[in-house]
Amino acid sequence: MEIMRVLDDLVCSRRIGGLQAASLRLLQNQAGDRQVATDPVGAPVGKWVFTTTGSAARVAMPDPRVMTDLTICGIIDHWVDEAADAA
Amino acid sequence: MEIMRVLDDLVCSRRIGGLQAASLRLLQNQAGDRQVATDPVGAPVGKWVFTTTGSAARVAMPDPRVMTDLTICGIIDHWVDEAADAA
Amino acid sequence: MEIMRVLDDLVCSRRIGGLQAASLRLLQNQAGDRQVATDPVGAPVGKWVFTTTGSAARVAMPDPRVMTDLTICGIIDHWVDEAADAA
Amino acid sequence: MEIMRVLDDLVCSRRIGGLQAASLRLLQNQAGDRQVATDPVGAPVGKWVFTTTGSAARVAMPDPRVMTDLTICGIIDHWVDEAADAA
Amino acid sequence: MEIMRVLDDLVCSRRIGGLQAASLRLLQNQAGDRQVATDPVGAPVGKWVFTTTGSAARVAMPDPRVMTDLTICGIIDHWVDEAADAA
Repeated sequence: MEIMRVLDDLVCSRRIGGLQAASLRLLQNQAGDRQVATDPVGAPVGKWVFTTTGSAARVAMPDPRVMTDLTICGIIDHWVDEAADAA
Repeated sequence: MEIMRVLDDLVCSRRIGGLQAASLRLLQNQAGDRQVATDPVGAPVGKWVFTTTGSAARVAMPDPRVMTDLTICGIIDHWVDEAADAA
Repeated sequence: MEIMRVLDDLVCSRRIGGLQAASLRLLQNQAGDRQVATDPVGAPVGKWVFTTTGSAARVAMPDPRVMTDLTICGIIDHWVDEAADAA
Repeated sequence: MEIMRVLDDLVCSRRIGGLQAASLRLLQNQAGDRQVATDPVGAPVGKWVFTTTGSAARVAMPDPRVMTDLTICGIIDHWVDEAADAA
Repeated sequence: MEIMRVLDDLVCSRRIGGLQAASLRLLQNQAGDRQVATDPVGAPVGKWVFTTTGSAARVAMPDPRVMTDLTICGIIDHWVDEAADAA
């Protein structure tokens, strides 16, 4: 599961029906790329989260019929930078 | 879901039957790579869109039997560059 | 669906039974990496094609039981470089 | 299956129910990126492990209903650097 | 299907049951990254092979219940470098 940061909500008026009313969030990964994820946990802007991809992204939604390939799974409490230093 | 920009329609006379009559679009991702996507929303050239991959790309089509691994899911209303600056 | 170029046939005497008698092609992607794909359309050497990955690669074969994760889906008629310039 | 190193446990108070009580580990891949994995083998910090992605990550869990896309599959006994030199 | 080279066997005493008694090989891809694959064809060290990922990796095994996301599918007889030059 990839570690990303919440940048903003995604403003998107025209979208396919398969997304239903799912909340969409604009995320940024560690390489700086921006991606769009469905958010069942209500992650605040600025927080680090971890996300799941593929078919697991649909299973992670309260309704697994929501069409997505990236879902926020949890909010990271604090960023363990000392772990990276020890690597 | 990845954020990409619509470059053009894709001209392709010989293609497999599994694609049926799906509209094909030429997209460019944030790294500058060009990819081909099926388009159920009718995204105009030049617009930013977000796309879904894998088995979700098929579920996102009106007919899930269409053979694709990249489908346009929505058109982004405005590009939130100030969000990137705050990251 | 990724855009690649056909380099050659792949010579391979020992391979698993799941590939059956599928035609194998050596492709090169936009980053210069070489990959192996099953080819149900008979793409000529030197042509640009677009390919599908994952479970869609199997659905794209005439026999979906063929074991593959990359299949050629269509031949691109002409390469729209002016589209990239406009991006 | 990708080769990664165990950095730390992941501290995460708010997470989706689909993860159940699965142990979460912070890993680092060969490119230096950090990822989050479920760990059914109890890999110690500092060890090299190999991981599986996609739907295989769920099958690799004792309970395949656990929502994950990255699972530790085994601990590498010793790192064969001489193999890389011979490449 | 990606093209990789066989570096060595993988020594791994503690691994999950889902891998059963599958032979594990240490491979190196064209970018130099090392990965772990299941090997149903018995590829010799030093040989170039092509591999399949995702759910196809399981279908490619004699027993599709073996938990893997990377399987060797065939041994390349000779490396067509002249094809790359013509690209």
